[in-house]
Amino acid sequence: MTKHSGNLFTRLRAACAADWQAYTGHEFVRALGDGSLPEPAFRYYLGQDYLFLIHFARAYGLAVYKADALDDMRAAAASLSAILDVEMDLHVKFCAGWGLDESTMAALPEDAATTAYTRYVLEAGQAGDLLDLHTALAPCIVGYAEIGATLAASGRLTGNPYREWIEMYAGADYQHVAQEEIETIERLGARRGGDARFDNLARTFGMATRLEADFWQMGLDAG
Amino acid sequence: MTKHSGNLFTRLRAACAADWQAYTGHEFVRALGDGSLPEPAFRYYLGQDYLFLIHFARAYGLAVYKADALDDMRAAAASLSAILDVEMDLHVKFCAGWGLDESTMAALPEDAATTAYTRYVLEAGQAGDLLDLHTALAPCIVGYAEIGATLAASGRLTGNPYREWIEMYAGADYQHVAQEEIETIERLGARRGGDARFDNLARTFGMATRLEADFWQMGLDAG
Amino acid sequence: MTKHSGNLFTRLRAACAADWQAYTGHEFVRALGDGSLPEPAFRYYLGQDYLFLIHFARAYGLAVYKADALDDMRAAAASLSAILDVEMDLHVKFCAGWGLDESTMAALPEDAATTAYTRYVLEAGQAGDLLDLHTALAPCIVGYAEIGATLAASGRLTGNPYREWIEMYAGADYQHVAQEEIETIERLGARRGGDARFDNLARTFGMATRLEADFWQMGLDAG
Amino acid sequence: MTKHSGNLFTRLRAACAADWQAYTGHEFVRALGDGSLPEPAFRYYLGQDYLFLIHFARAYGLAVYKADALDDMRAAAASLSAILDVEMDLHVKFCAGWGLDESTMAALPEDAATTAYTRYVLEAGQAGDLLDLHTALAPCIVGYAEIGATLAASGRLTGNPYREWIEMYAGADYQHVAQEEIETIERLGARRGGDARFDNLARTFGMATRLEADFWQMGLDAG
Repeated sequence: MTKHSGNLFTRLRAACAADWQAYTGHEFVRALGDGSLPEPAFRYYLGQDYLFLIHFARAYGLAVYKADALDDMRAAAASLSAILDVEMDLHVKFCAGWGLDESTMAALPEDAATTAYTRYVLEAGQAGDLLDLHTALAPCIVGYAEIGATLAASGRLTGNPYREWIEMYAGADYQHVAQEEIETIERLGARRGGDARFDNLARTFGMATRLEADFWQMGLDAG
Repeated sequence: MTKHSGNLFTRLRAACAADWQAYTGHEFVRALGDGSLPEPAFRYYLGQDYLFLIHFARAYGLAVYKADALDDMRAAAASLSAILDVEMDLHVKFCAGWGLDESTMAALPEDAATTAYTRYVLEAGQAGDLLDLHTALAPCIVGYAEIGATLAASGRLTGNPYREWIEMYAGADYQHVAQEEIETIERLGARRGGDARFDNLARTFGMATRLEADFWQMGLDAG
Repeated sequence: MTKHSGNLFTRLRAACAADWQAYTGHEFVRALGDGSLPEPAFRYYLGQDYLFLIHFARAYGLAVYKADALDDMRAAAASLSAILDVEMDLHVKFCAGWGLDESTMAALPEDAATTAYTRYVLEAGQAGDLLDLHTALAPCIVGYAEIGATLAASGRLTGNPYREWIEMYAGADYQHVAQEEIETIERLGARRGGDARFDNLARTFGMATRLEADFWQMGLDAG
Repeated sequence: MTKHSGNLFTRLRAACAADWQAYTGHEFVRALGDGSLPEPAFRYYLGQDYLFLIHFARAYGLAVYKADALDDMRAAAASLSAILDVEMDLHVKFCAGWGLDESTMAALPEDAATTAYTRYVLEAGQAGDLLDLHTALAPCIVGYAEIGATLAASGRLTGNPYREWIEMYAGADYQHVAQEEIETIERLGARRGGDARFDNLARTFGMATRLEADFWQMGLDAG
């Protein structure tokens, strides 16, 4: 994940470099990496992440609807299946290991940070087109891959209670998902005027990045 | 398919009985049943049905987005996968048997009847809620099951060039899909005020039914 | 209306020149111009145009929602007010002169050509962004201005029962509306990658243009 | 504003009584009433309220699109005009009195509380129908009327720097706007199954109410 083939994505990330750094290098992330994150912070984050995943799946449903090419539809539908049929189960099993069962998480009050981030993404997608939607989704998908790769490379994994989480996002499967998202951004950018829309897209990308940082902060505040 | 367990669906169908009869008993359908449908009519229909399927899949993407319960999301995502990963392939293979290859169909000019029906359903779904969307989708899904069952029971199958088509929609798999759609309508109707919204829903259901009849007529006119 | 300042609009129109000609030079239009259009054709058209106007107003509501700049919101809201508060009343008064009262028109069955056109525009707008929406709206707005100007210049106005209709669209007010729509297309095109998205936009523009021609044909068929 | 004629609205408010109290009786509100609110808190609130108003106007554009009856369209369009043509100007003038000019406010970073609330409302409206949208809008519109009326009746107005703000929302014009919103909720509730959808609507109403309380808290935290 050290190099991105994608040009538009790279430019978007560079346009909000400070926000990107505040997100991917957040204190929550650092504390995951050295294992010092208080367990309540992690558990609070996990519960909200469950609620997040539901809206994330909805975003891929929206991406299927918004597509005007069969390959985009199939790609979005595959991501949707991956979330609903695989990731969600993994998340639920992972959370069970931390003592959180699914019905408890489903009944959690939604934190304002969760609301802000999920609804921002979905609404940007409804108001705009498929490129706007993916631009709002990308910081999450690609950012987690960067975080996973960085922590796996430089974090303290031995004895780290969050090792499994780190390895999940550092793993080849997830890195591949992120790479595909970058390629989607490039493909849609080429087809739908990404360069000419850059300022607008960078605003969306930066906003989603800041809302991701808020999501970490929410976890930290609960610790 | 002779009895519907569903009460809301039954009432919707009854509220547009003449339109429902004009759709399920259309001359195109009758001619499929006795094998007298001119081949060009069928081939034109098949090509437009390919274009229709793409928007039908988009409607299920929209249904995932519009869902506010995980079971509704999973049901819609399963239907979406069934369309994109199974039905579409079946349709393409079936059409190949009639000399229509996928790239040809993908490049067909969209008939106004196809536009009217597909965009009506999608737009009713965007303007309204998940119940509005399913109410617009139901005439297609359930109507084809009724047509298939009726033709299989009373049509002339031996030597009928359209036998495979009839048996596909008469088959247990498709009948099950239609039964599930009826159950979806009932479940959403109970949750989202189906009875109180009946007049409005009946208008949507009737409109979609008439647009389905127009779709048959489009095929017939091409014969 | 002989020259368009707008470059993107001009290119869109040129990309579907034959369809544009079939729409703006339709037999219905020609017969409006020399007064030979059968009255039942015109009255049928007027009734469906009333239903059309309602969805047209909805499209401007959608344009307000889809805007990401205050000037775009204000422009769309002004158009919306113009439709709901002025045009609709003018249309109703005009129709009254042809013996059609509003409650009768509101209760008319919607023609499939009306459904196809209105829902295509709205759905293209929901699936895409504000530029997609305006690209779908432009053939109607600008085409009527071209038709009005052409018929006023070359048609037979004296004794023509459709003179008032022609002069309405040929008039400075409506020509100004059309000019503003062209400017909106240019402004949004510049901001949202119009050139890079040209093929896609041209597909939408061409489709809307053909659906407009179908709308004339619907009137003619009713004559 | 002590009595609501509306039955559905009354039930919705009662279903989240504690949240409603936390919103309408928030410390920010109390401090407005006795004039003790720190000026920076008020100014921060005003700036974010400007950003809020833009999305609020977008919600009314969406309401026009989502309407399926001409009276609902006209009502939403009138509210939209009121916001864009009147309220926004009033807000800008009012803010100028506090040293905030429009271009400064337009360039403010959007607070996460503003994002959460505005996008929640818009997204609930897109995912659901017109009743869902108004249910998400109502806590703002009606809550401000209750707050204005309560503070005007029991607050300390003499010498209160926030007197003009209080009197704006306590005034007959705004009280009328709120009364109309309650009537809209009742009308749509009757037409679109409000009672049968009550649990779902109450969830939306409660969420929007809590996000309003967060909006006050955001102001207070900036003080």
